[in-house]
Amino acid sequence: MSRRLRELSKPGPIACVNKRALGLNQAIGRDDERPYAVRIPVRRMEGARIGIVTVSDRASEGIYEDLSGPEIHRILEDILITKWTHIKRIIPDEREVIESTLISLCDTEGCDLIVTTGGTGPSPRDVTPEATESVCDRMMPGYGELMRAVSLRHVPTAVLSRQTAGLRGTCLIVNLPGSPKAINEILPHLFESIPACIDLMGGPFIDTDPEHVVAFRPNHR
Amino acid sequence: MSRRLRELSKPGPIACVNKRALGLNQAIGRDDERPYAVRIPVRRMEGARIGIVTVSDRASEGIYEDLSGPEIHRILEDILITKWTHIKRIIPDEREVIESTLISLCDTEGCDLIVTTGGTGPSPRDVTPEATESVCDRMMPGYGELMRAVSLRHVPTAVLSRQTAGLRGTCLIVNLPGSPKAINEILPHLFESIPACIDLMGGPFIDTDPEHVVAFRPNHR
Amino acid sequence: MSRRLRELSKPGPIACVNKRALGLNQAIGRDDERPYAVRIPVRRMEGARIGIVTVSDRASEGIYEDLSGPEIHRILEDILITKWTHIKRIIPDEREVIESTLISLCDTEGCDLIVTTGGTGPSPRDVTPEATESVCDRMMPGYGELMRAVSLRHVPTAVLSRQTAGLRGTCLIVNLPGSPKAINEILPHLFESIPACIDLMGGPFIDTDPEHVVAFRPNHR
Repeated sequence: MSRRLRELSKPGPIACVNKRALGLNQAIGRDDERPYAVRIPVRRMEGARIGIVTVSDRASEGIYEDLSGPEIHRILEDILITKWTHIKRIIPDEREVIESTLISLCDTEGCDLIVTTGGTGPSPRDVTPEATESVCDRMMPGYGELMRAVSLRHVPTAVLSRQTAGLRGTCLIVNLPGSPKAINEILPHLFESIPACIDLMGGPFIDTDPEHVVAFRPNHR
Repeated sequence: MSRRLRELSKPGPIACVNKRALGLNQAIGRDDERPYAVRIPVRRMEGARIGIVTVSDRASEGIYEDLSGPEIHRILEDILITKWTHIKRIIPDEREVIESTLISLCDTEGCDLIVTTGGTGPSPRDVTPEATESVCDRMMPGYGELMRAVSLRHVPTAVLSRQTAGLRGTCLIVNLPGSPKAINEILPHLFESIPACIDLMGGPFIDTDPEHVVAFRPNHR
Repeated sequence: MSRRLRELSKPGPIACVNKRALGLNQAIGRDDERPYAVRIPVRRMEGARIGIVTVSDRASEGIYEDLSGPEIHRILEDILITKWTHIKRIIPDEREVIESTLISLCDTEGCDLIVTTGGTGPSPRDVTPEATESVCDRMMPGYGELMRAVSLRHVPTAVLSRQTAGLRGTCLIVNLPGSPKAINEILPHLFESIPACIDLMGGPFIDTDPEHVVAFRPNHR
């Protein structure tokens, strides 16, 4: 359970219960001690914490330069107009290392979003989706479907992408493909929905530059 | 194992073995004692039993009125032209309660179809897909993919819908989204294929008003 | 673990380490003893080994003729212009039999690709996807999504297809639907990406007749 979810789930008074002022807060509890409004203002001030994880044997050994992680960083710099901080990792295609890295970024570093790149194909060493699924408590099948559908417009081998996405506590983990070109095709598209997803989990408000992508927020009652 | 599947699987004579008269009957056994034709006429007379389950903390507590369950009921009244009965439940977003409700509707109430609404998003309390998967013995991934694809035509945040569908014995369980608007966009569409699915499991014949949706039945040999 | 993956994974010298000559070889290890280039030329000479598995109670009992297996064979004869050999099986809709057949074709027969037909619907005896998932160590969700999307252009009941695909070691297993018509709609389409998938796992080079389908090979660095 992530730091934030643990905090939100425990009984007793919480930082803020003014639903009206908070906007899109969501129900997370049913006990009287756990009110429905749970977004904690101090987190909004800090901005979103985003983990960027490059999974690659060769990049982690320095055999070649990691191009994908910096590309994700550059795109996020373009897209996001609200405050955010990033935490980067470059790790080998080892399932245990991927899992422990994701767990640490969620539970210790308090990331709201983690984007991985690499390790999603059918090569024998590609195990990023398996590691992701094993650390998530709930899966988000729509992201894998969407990414493959978008990439299929460009190359028929997009069907080989095994990308998935899921939730660990209140952190969204999304696998991106390994190639910078494919990352460019997909990542801006995902930010139509990621800000609303973070909202729904009580995370920090994220907004995007509409010149790059419009963050859609449905009207919930 | 559901009541009907248990009945159909046991060795010995069964109610009806006239394949020609029954139309779309399916193979369910290989032993000589278990013939391939298994639809039981008496069930056809009773009509389909359909469970409608609203999963919502607030609706179940009476904090607000359940609009989604009645909307599903209204749409089914419009669509179905064969006899059917419904069983309604309004329950909180508690995984154990969702699971026991689905099990009871399948195994005790003998539902042929259960439609849930709510609890399919990324909010921390949303666990309907997990509960559904845990009570199903076989999954139907096509329905989740189809629903997200249909909803994506309307809003980009449809990618956040974690809806799934599966089979418990011979009962089809389908998760719908929580909003009445999204239910209207999706539910009629699903009835192009649900009657054929119920046929294939030896369930009661269901037909639809072609003004609303045409139930497609492929020619099987 | 399949015969080939076991062979490639063991420490010590291997048959061939000339990456440049081999083209699309993939990283499979990180130890100094296990070089990244692992495709073994002798396997390329033999050509691809393809398993064709018909899953059908009635066909396996001789109640009716297997039309789907021969249809797959005929289409592959049309499509493939590189050497290949096939291994055929006709088995009942018994989960244990399907699993042991797939395991034997992967681990003992050394298949690079297995194509199944039948047992993917919602009928109580349809368990091919469950058997496939249980013998695979990594899933390929894109193929199920793609096949349903293609079939949905033809019939709305394609949503009922529970087809999946996955990898056992370095063997790709793909479920096709049971009807020869649906097989014709789908199988050629899959060979846009299957040769690249086999490449990525270090398997034999497969090429297709461009009059039927163009095998796409992305440029990897």
